[in-house]
Amino acid sequence: MTDDDLGFAIPDHDREARWGLPEAVLGIGKTPSQIAQIVERLRERNTGPVLVTKTTHEAFDAVRRVAPEAEFHEDARLIRIARDPVVVGGTIGVIAAGTADYPFAEEAAITAESAGATVDRIYDVGVAGLHRLFARLERIQACDALVVVAGMEGALPTVVGGLTGLPIIAVPTSIGYGTAFGGLAALLGMLNSCTPQVTCVNIDNGFGAGFFAALVTRKR
Amino acid sequence: MTDDDLGFAIPDHDREARWGLPEAVLGIGKTPSQIAQIVERLRERNTGPVLVTKTTHEAFDAVRRVAPEAEFHEDARLIRIARDPVVVGGTIGVIAAGTADYPFAEEAAITAESAGATVDRIYDVGVAGLHRLFARLERIQACDALVVVAGMEGALPTVVGGLTGLPIIAVPTSIGYGTAFGGLAALLGMLNSCTPQVTCVNIDNGFGAGFFAALVTRKR
Amino acid sequence: MTDDDLGFAIPDHDREARWGLPEAVLGIGKTPSQIAQIVERLRERNTGPVLVTKTTHEAFDAVRRVAPEAEFHEDARLIRIARDPVVVGGTIGVIAAGTADYPFAEEAAITAESAGATVDRIYDVGVAGLHRLFARLERIQACDALVVVAGMEGALPTVVGGLTGLPIIAVPTSIGYGTAFGGLAALLGMLNSCTPQVTCVNIDNGFGAGFFAALVTRKR
Amino acid sequence: MTDDDLGFAIPDHDREARWGLPEAVLGIGKTPSQIAQIVERLRERNTGPVLVTKTTHEAFDAVRRVAPEAEFHEDARLIRIARDPVVVGGTIGVIAAGTADYPFAEEAAITAESAGATVDRIYDVGVAGLHRLFARLERIQACDALVVVAGMEGALPTVVGGLTGLPIIAVPTSIGYGTAFGGLAALLGMLNSCTPQVTCVNIDNGFGAGFFAALVTRKR
Amino acid sequence: MTDDDLGFAIPDHDREARWGLPEAVLGIGKTPSQIAQIVERLRERNTGPVLVTKTTHEAFDAVRRVAPEAEFHEDARLIRIARDPVVVGGTIGVIAAGTADYPFAEEAAITAESAGATVDRIYDVGVAGLHRLFARLERIQACDALVVVAGMEGALPTVVGGLTGLPIIAVPTSIGYGTAFGGLAALLGMLNSCTPQVTCVNIDNGFGAGFFAALVTRKR
Amino acid sequence: MTDDDLGFAIPDHDREARWGLPEAVLGIGKTPSQIAQIVERLRERNTGPVLVTKTTHEAFDAVRRVAPEAEFHEDARLIRIARDPVVVGGTIGVIAAGTADYPFAEEAAITAESAGATVDRIYDVGVAGLHRLFARLERIQACDALVVVAGMEGALPTVVGGLTGLPIIAVPTSIGYGTAFGGLAALLGMLNSCTPQVTCVNIDNGFGAGFFAALVTRKR
Amino acid sequence: MTDDDLGFAIPDHDREARWGLPEAVLGIGKTPSQIAQIVERLRERNTGPVLVTKTTHEAFDAVRRVAPEAEFHEDARLIRIARDPVVVGGTIGVIAAGTADYPFAEEAAITAESAGATVDRIYDVGVAGLHRLFARLERIQACDALVVVAGMEGALPTVVGGLTGLPIIAVPTSIGYGTAFGGLAALLGMLNSCTPQVTCVNIDNGFGAGFFAALVTRKR
Amino acid sequence: MTDDDLGFAIPDHDREARWGLPEAVLGIGKTPSQIAQIVERLRERNTGPVLVTKTTHEAFDAVRRVAPEAEFHEDARLIRIARDPVVVGGTIGVIAAGTADYPFAEEAAITAESAGATVDRIYDVGVAGLHRLFARLERIQACDALVVVAGMEGALPTVVGGLTGLPIIAVPTSIGYGTAFGGLAALLGMLNSCTPQVTCVNIDNGFGAGFFAALVTRKR
Repeated sequence: MTDDDLGFAIPDHDREARWGLPEAVLGIGKTPSQIAQIVERLRERNTGPVLVTKTTHEAFDAVRRVAPEAEFHEDARLIRIARDPVVVGGTIGVIAAGTADYPFAEEAAITAESAGATVDRIYDVGVAGLHRLFARLERIQACDALVVVAGMEGALPTVVGGLTGLPIIAVPTSIGYGTAFGGLAALLGMLNSCTPQVTCVNIDNGFGAGFFAALVTRKR
Repeated sequence: MTDDDLGFAIPDHDREARWGLPEAVLGIGKTPSQIAQIVERLRERNTGPVLVTKTTHEAFDAVRRVAPEAEFHEDARLIRIARDPVVVGGTIGVIAAGTADYPFAEEAAITAESAGATVDRIYDVGVAGLHRLFARLERIQACDALVVVAGMEGALPTVVGGLTGLPIIAVPTSIGYGTAFGGLAALLGMLNSCTPQVTCVNIDNGFGAGFFAALVTRKR
Repeated sequence: MTDDDLGFAIPDHDREARWGLPEAVLGIGKTPSQIAQIVERLRERNTGPVLVTKTTHEAFDAVRRVAPEAEFHEDARLIRIARDPVVVGGTIGVIAAGTADYPFAEEAAITAESAGATVDRIYDVGVAGLHRLFARLERIQACDALVVVAGMEGALPTVVGGLTGLPIIAVPTSIGYGTAFGGLAALLGMLNSCTPQVTCVNIDNGFGAGFFAALVTRKR
Repeated sequence: MTDDDLGFAIPDHDREARWGLPEAVLGIGKTPSQIAQIVERLRERNTGPVLVTKTTHEAFDAVRRVAPEAEFHEDARLIRIARDPVVVGGTIGVIAAGTADYPFAEEAAITAESAGATVDRIYDVGVAGLHRLFARLERIQACDALVVVAGMEGALPTVVGGLTGLPIIAVPTSIGYGTAFGGLAALLGMLNSCTPQVTCVNIDNGFGAGFFAALVTRKR
Repeated sequence: MTDDDLGFAIPDHDREARWGLPEAVLGIGKTPSQIAQIVERLRERNTGPVLVTKTTHEAFDAVRRVAPEAEFHEDARLIRIARDPVVVGGTIGVIAAGTADYPFAEEAAITAESAGATVDRIYDVGVAGLHRLFARLERIQACDALVVVAGMEGALPTVVGGLTGLPIIAVPTSIGYGTAFGGLAALLGMLNSCTPQVTCVNIDNGFGAGFFAALVTRKR
Repeated sequence: MTDDDLGFAIPDHDREARWGLPEAVLGIGKTPSQIAQIVERLRERNTGPVLVTKTTHEAFDAVRRVAPEAEFHEDARLIRIARDPVVVGGTIGVIAAGTADYPFAEEAAITAESAGATVDRIYDVGVAGLHRLFARLERIQACDALVVVAGMEGALPTVVGGLTGLPIIAVPTSIGYGTAFGGLAALLGMLNSCTPQVTCVNIDNGFGAGFFAALVTRKR
Repeated sequence: MTDDDLGFAIPDHDREARWGLPEAVLGIGKTPSQIAQIVERLRERNTGPVLVTKTTHEAFDAVRRVAPEAEFHEDARLIRIARDPVVVGGTIGVIAAGTADYPFAEEAAITAESAGATVDRIYDVGVAGLHRLFARLERIQACDALVVVAGMEGALPTVVGGLTGLPIIAVPTSIGYGTAFGGLAALLGMLNSCTPQVTCVNIDNGFGAGFFAALVTRKR
Repeated sequence: MTDDDLGFAIPDHDREARWGLPEAVLGIGKTPSQIAQIVERLRERNTGPVLVTKTTHEAFDAVRRVAPEAEFHEDARLIRIARDPVVVGGTIGVIAAGTADYPFAEEAAITAESAGATVDRIYDVGVAGLHRLFARLERIQACDALVVVAGMEGALPTVVGGLTGLPIIAVPTSIGYGTAFGGLAALLGMLNSCTPQVTCVNIDNGFGAGFFAALVTRKR
């Protein structure tokens, strides 16, 4: 076998060519040692930034030993080896409804930057105080695509869609309680949005939204 | 036994005194003949308007035989004997997101009127075209309380709550498809609203919202 | 930008004017430092009481440093800066089914008081021993509106609705086990109540119920 | 093989001895011809009443050809061959919350009678007008066990349990709309009842409740 | 007010007369101090056994201070003051499917004994090795009613119902993983049992099943 | 393009070689004309039996025009062109719990025969009358693998697994009402079976079970 | 009021400017007459194509009277007034897994064309016969973005994502039975896709996917 | 009673004869002491390997005292007494989608080996990088049956089924987040697989899949 088989993992070095971003490592369910070994390989065989998402301090300690330049974004639970992106993307507005949605918005923003995009962060502009959003409409209109992050009832992407003509990638978050059901209420709100320019990713999946936004605004 | 026992039903003539509206008849699961007999008793023993909700043409035919003055609101699936309300309510704004939410908005509006309120109907002002809502804000601000009716993602009560300080009774509707799940998406959106002045009733329960709005704005 | 942008949050100072209560801070998902900074701004720019709900000892420690007069209601997980309300509300009966529903009933009661209402607390009068409720009916009838708090099967708002003509805001709680499903059984019971004067808020949302009850009984 | 194998069915003639009621035929998913053939065998090999539940006019037409004495209870969707019960049961109160719960209450009542019990029917005494229930408490207290049938929020068994010390078999019904979810709301309400003398059967399962009530009150 | 109002609780001393067992205290959501105060009142004002269910070591420490004779059944998470029952019940077979169902079976067994029944415990006779159940059929047939406790697929009550004619109160337990969904799979299996003599209680509700079984077999 | 592209469908003629059965046509969502055209191609390019599952009379009329030898199994909603199987399988016992499960059992049996197996049909041996199953244990033990079909609580595969050592493919059916939830109760019962030799297919998927059983018993 | 208020509807003529496609009419819950009146206004006030989705023959008859040039795409349940798009999009590959997914794929394709895109249709290339997909990889790689439509397990977007680097908008369809749960299984599969370039729309929402794909590939 | 009754457990020594593997102990809900006592009996009365699944370090410490030769597979949370299998199975390919699925794949592999099979482990070949799977197709084709383990969207069994004609036992895992819903998304994907040779076991049930695969490939 000629591919890069570690026994527990076979890092896929083809992804940088295919997507413009090396395989990102989802931290869930992997041991720190496994994460470190995978990062080591990705770092050697690729030239662009390397990301580990939904990860821990323990994993960062292990990664730092093989990649001393790695940084840990604690809020976003994200490890980054910050190298120059291999592609050039457009401008992505990352808009978050509430303070508590910050980690997932940052996951999206850092991912989009790693995939070559320029990011404008617009946080805590939720629907309960709409004037905050209106005050920033001009910045929003200047973007090529939007990532809109919201928990609870998840109305923000719909409202933004009622105000602009830009494509919106909506990220439901697990923020809320009771019938928020860990993000399900927000997700359903986004899937049933009455504005047609909204698509969704999984609950808390800032990575996917940031990556997709960079991909669709990429300069070819 | 001294109460009004029909065998299959015991109409509760105490409600007009308690609530300002006679017992309303929920049409679901009752035969036309049963509905007609109950209406006959309510009409005799009360002085205010009589309502049958979520009902059918067949039931209306039976009711008309015992109450020739009854009218059928086909869209709202509602039979009404339109007599003077026994109490006086405030002004209720009934706001509907889409054309398809019309039946449930009408159920709320007619109920509120029957319970003594004055109603201002504002329909098809959903979030996908927010300027339609903004153009009617002055009318909305003139109300004492609002009933806001919406299906799909159910964002409208939240948006209205972000623009006014009025109490809002939200009615999720079964309008939508796929993950609208018969109104569940809208309901969850409303229960998790980030604005604090929103309470909810059951899916499609225009009657309950209209009644509650009349009750809380009643002149004592 | 002229609004109050902290980067992670934009406190909405317009709410005291709009609602009679400053923006309340939902503690979930915010760091103690973020909460303290937001409270600091709200305290400066508003004159009425300030509340933080669903919060922790750690957040209280941070808040106390910027607002030494703040108190922590441990049971209700609520921080309050107890200043004079800016509006005057009616009398709210806060009724709880069981001892375990106490925290959410207190969240409702303190919120209603902060929003200008007078509160009568009636606790542990659940349906399993109905005579306890009957013995307090006169106190209940003297209120302008009721907040009824119950977990498990959530039958209490329906029973109270069968005994009085007052508007009821029902709060389902997460108290129970097995098929209580974290408050879902109680919520469904309340949404499907056979008495028409019941509306619902989210599971455990004592804040919303207390706020709404104060809003609808406000003296204008 | 010595048992009674029809190819598509093997009627179980042991049940009359085991339970005091022959195997009852659940009509769902069986053709009229299959139902008629099974009834024919049960009628020959047993001496007690024979029941077919949740069935249709078409099945009744087929059954009548093999058992001319069979009757069809249209509301209850039940075919009965009314013979003397083989055991003697106690007195069962069958209590229904609303007019629309009638079919399921009748299914329970007829089943209990077929299994040897005496039945007192008390219908339309739901929680929205509690005085109707109070007026019949003496009749209720005279029973050995209760079957309580309710849709919507399903609060009636809990309320009855708060007023008496009798064992209660609760039947949730599919009556309601929206978040009634075809009886799920009522079922959850009953399973989470705060009174300890309530057990449940499946949604709409009047047969099971009537049978169980007869079984536990049987004179040995 | 003449009833026994502790502020946070109003113990219901009427229950011993009504049910033959004093109010049992559900430990969930109550503080140790609250539990101890309630137990103190129940112990004084009643003569029969006192139970606290789903409780903790901390609560037991508090209870012991006011009731030194109290015992803690650690497996069953149950505190008991073991006094003579005030009524006499029949013989209850408590049957458990697996070793892991033991705590809930013991909760049922101790409750039934406290309510005056005699209990025969038959544990670890699940369906995967049916010969274990067959070997104990004679003991089972000697009972007046059965409590059958099972997690996972919850098939045991149905199988026991296929072998005997006794009434069965089924207790689904939260034992299992994955699609057991915390007892939901077992509950659905029991509610849909193809044998008609099965009723259900809430997941893990050994108390309710034991109490109900004692109630229906009580000597009058 | 060299494959067999009909525009709306690309029949996969490779399956007979891969699986021993040509591509079977799932009737759901296809027009009669589409089904007939696909069957025509499969019949020409393969030598083994051709099946259409979950189909209608209308589709059969269309198929008959291109394949006059086709037969319609009405109960099983299945069209078959009955040609000699291209492989030889073992002996499969198809066991059904109730009369109403017959259509899905037949779908499994006919599929297994078409895939080369010999089938022994054992129907209506549900758990409510276990002696019927015991009387047929010898026939069951003579099989190489079992397909066990059951709705409602779905306990039969578990019981059969407690009596034999054979591999069991369980088919939950949509037979039942209320909390049967269209087969979900049965499916969960089967997935959580306490006997380890049970695997599951989708609700009502007799085809998949019959095919899999033939595949694992195939003579190589 | 200066906007275009029909009473039951306020057509939003701003959308063509904002999005490049006039407001599309969702047919669900609107009467034929309402649809025709809305179409009439949209046709007059806009220059681009007009669409009605999820509609009926009855609505088409009404629309034809006000817009004789309208066509009805019966499979896709879509009415189109086919005028020149007002913007120019990229090339969209619309890929469908099975024959039964055709209506939703066509809804996507026609919408994308109406919004200015060029569409390449690739249908019936589901995962059960992967060689069909491989044979069309070159065509797929030539697109700017992909809409991938699949019911049942919804694996196709993930597989396509494992083979290309293009952005994918996934459309889960309601095709399937049993645990397909009306498209929920497919939706969950797509939201949890292990390839990062997948976003989702609502079940059966071909319109949204086609519109979004056109929007992100638009030439600016 | 002549069977092996420990009070809390009755080990079933008949299983080795029936299944070729002694009763395996599911660790969930059992105390270390109970596990050790059961293992002690199984070890004495059987000759084949003994397994404890889903267990802990504490249980291993207790087991080691009665069975010093026992080993703990920490990743797989499995205790094994590794003795010669009593039957001979075929070759099972155990295929895992991601690194995080490793524990469940190992549970399957060790179980299959204990039940007499030969196992080929093929890990981290998920759909996001399909070339890794293609590179190992020859090894896969050499097996008699496959166990395919995957979390998230669970597409791998379907893809493998589209490439081979082997029977597949699919194991959904709880790996993922958000709408993965603890393995439900993967399970639904597998139950709705468009390839017919896939059956499923419970979420995370590597034991059941490994056992079943050994059973169906056993040499008789």
